[in-house]
Amino acid sequence: MDFLESYLTQNDITILKGRESLHAYEFNGTTFIRLSQGYKHYQRGTVFYDKGIIPGYPRIMRILHLANGINRYFKDKFYIEEKMDGYNVRIAVINATPIAFTRGGFICPFTTDRISDLINTNFFNEYPEYTVCGEVVGPGSPYNTEDIPYIDEDVAFFAFDLIDEKGNHLSAENRYKIFERFNIQQVKRWGPFSASDIDTVKNIVLELDRDSREGIVIKSVSDGKPVKYVTLSSCLRDLEATTHLITELPAGFFMQRILRAVFLCHEFAIPFSNEYLISSAKALYIIPGETLRAVAGGKNIKEFFNVKVRNKNTVDKLIQHLNRSGVRTHLASVEKSGDYYKVKFYKIYIKGTKELRHRLMGKGFFD
Amino acid sequence: MDFLESYLTQNDITILKGRESLHAYEFNGTTFIRLSQGYKHYQRGTVFYDKGIIPGYPRIMRILHLANGINRYFKDKFYIEEKMDGYNVRIAVINATPIAFTRGGFICPFTTDRISDLINTNFFNEYPEYTVCGEVVGPGSPYNTEDIPYIDEDVAFFAFDLIDEKGNHLSAENRYKIFERFNIQQVKRWGPFSASDIDTVKNIVLELDRDSREGIVIKSVSDGKPVKYVTLSSCLRDLEATTHLITELPAGFFMQRILRAVFLCHEFAIPFSNEYLISSAKALYIIPGETLRAVAGGKNIKEFFNVKVRNKNTVDKLIQHLNRSGVRTHLASVEKSGDYYKVKFYKIYIKGTKELRHRLMGKGFFD
Repeated sequence: MDFLESYLTQNDITILKGRESLHAYEFNGTTFIRLSQGYKHYQRGTVFYDKGIIPGYPRIMRILHLANGINRYFKDKFYIEEKMDGYNVRIAVINATPIAFTRGGFICPFTTDRISDLINTNFFNEYPEYTVCGEVVGPGSPYNTEDIPYIDEDVAFFAFDLIDEKGNHLSAENRYKIFERFNIQQVKRWGPFSASDIDTVKNIVLELDRDSREGIVIKSVSDGKPVKYVTLSSCLRDLEATTHLITELPAGFFMQRILRAVFLCHEFAIPFSNEYLISSAKALYIIPGETLRAVAGGKNIKEFFNVKVRNKNTVDKLIQHLNRSGVRTHLASVEKSGDYYKVKFYKIYIKGTKELRHRLMGKGFFD
Repeated sequence: MDFLESYLTQNDITILKGRESLHAYEFNGTTFIRLSQGYKHYQRGTVFYDKGIIPGYPRIMRILHLANGINRYFKDKFYIEEKMDGYNVRIAVINATPIAFTRGGFICPFTTDRISDLINTNFFNEYPEYTVCGEVVGPGSPYNTEDIPYIDEDVAFFAFDLIDEKGNHLSAENRYKIFERFNIQQVKRWGPFSASDIDTVKNIVLELDRDSREGIVIKSVSDGKPVKYVTLSSCLRDLEATTHLITELPAGFFMQRILRAVFLCHEFAIPFSNEYLISSAKALYIIPGETLRAVAGGKNIKEFFNVKVRNKNTVDKLIQHLNRSGVRTHLASVEKSGDYYKVKFYKIYIKGTKELRHRLMGKGFFD
């Protein structure tokens, strides 16, 4: 781990070890050290290795009032980019092999296996030291269960950031041009706009809302920090996709989505329709009720996933990777299909199941 | 504070001081020390003074499955007592004066002022060293805003526990007899039952539900720990009474009530009606939307209270007492009315208002 000293002082390293923030792992003979919490200018998920750094992807501030948020943070011109509902990855070339890193700085075995399907890797011949950041979206995702109405099957990659060898995020316009040149699919974009274009921006949000899209990220043409804002329908879809995990996820997860919807309807002067209210209440009461019935019948809270991979040994690596979190992942089946292996697996939500089971058994608790 | 040494060792006192758990205050020339966190067998809210202890009122375990909870915790016979929707007080005589203590061990200026209206204080002539525990319920409460459909105006006291000079909770039957003898109003009760009477208990819950009552506390005839269980309608009423505080109260407060309703409907095989779903969704979306509009219009999140007191100087003491928490309480008016003063005041929810205001102003945040 000597290479750490090129980036961090001995004192920094001692502090980070004390906080248990440095996690080493190996991949293809290379040692990587992942930063599990942000430190100084290094973001959480930053990865160090002997020949460089993969910078962590920064968290993006959320606003709940679109017009006032834009006025507050964008004195200069800005682009609107679509915020997509998938998982964030950073793709970089390590010793001539493209590798995909998760937000937390782990290697994602699934995305890494599928990189050649997701982006034109010729890009790295010209820009070997660049990191491509984007969202992997689609029904073939091993992380997301939310229905993606606009993608039929399998996953797709949508780029939204590009980091150079010095760790700088390229300007929006430079990035758009470079990705276009290599035919790398990018998230949808509009602009540039200025604060006086707020009505146009609102219409973009409404259009995305009608198309069941998640929302937008607003990015300065110069170098300000981006902010994000989501659609009304995405708040409801989030509830519908997650309330079976009512005892697994923090309560704030659900209440935040309700609050986002309340702010949007206030700003856009949209009254809540009975249809929206009923759908939301069904998500909050009927779905957990069905989960409870399943657990009462001896079942666990489960989610099934169908993904496809190129290499058979990706399967075990993926299951192992997913089992690192508190959720238990089990392989159900692997089936050869052309150049791919179709993999079916499921996750069992241990904590959420256990809490429902204890309550069903009449165990008391203090609240 | 020498009297503390009659109950706690020097070592205990040192530990409790280190934890900042001991809070001294004076009332009518007597020094009281309140315990702000439980310690060994002393409950949070225990009050020590030179001539004795007012034991803290124990937290009561909640169950979400009535039949299984009863089977688990009640091998012996048990009574059902109504759980009422008010605030918990302990009334004890200190130097010949009856004083009401809050759950946390503060003196409640309002309840203390009104004790003679709430219970027959002749009780203390015979039992000067007993502590009477009960719920103060009603529209004239300075703590609760939830509508109490079965009480027209002002507050009423309902006894549910009696603690003797040794700190023991009297058995249910003894307590019922003593309170009856002094004509002290008690919470409604049924029983004794055994676990085979579960259908009768369920019918009591359904009857309370129809009458818009909160729920039940199940108490062993011998000496087991009590457990509590609430009605379906109380879950909805709680939401309706509190979602204007969506940014003031913890998210778990709201999600817990949804979960309680889901468990009840599962066990009682009650399908959620559209009416229930719509009412709940209205509480979660429409009420916070109205609050947001008020805050956008420059207002604060406020709640108004109308109480009546016997002594004019209770007014200031009450406002001071309420201002000890994070909420700001302001006096609106005081008006003489017969033997009483009618007091109108309001609470401003600073934290909840500030969060809505910041979000309306477009301030971003990380979530």
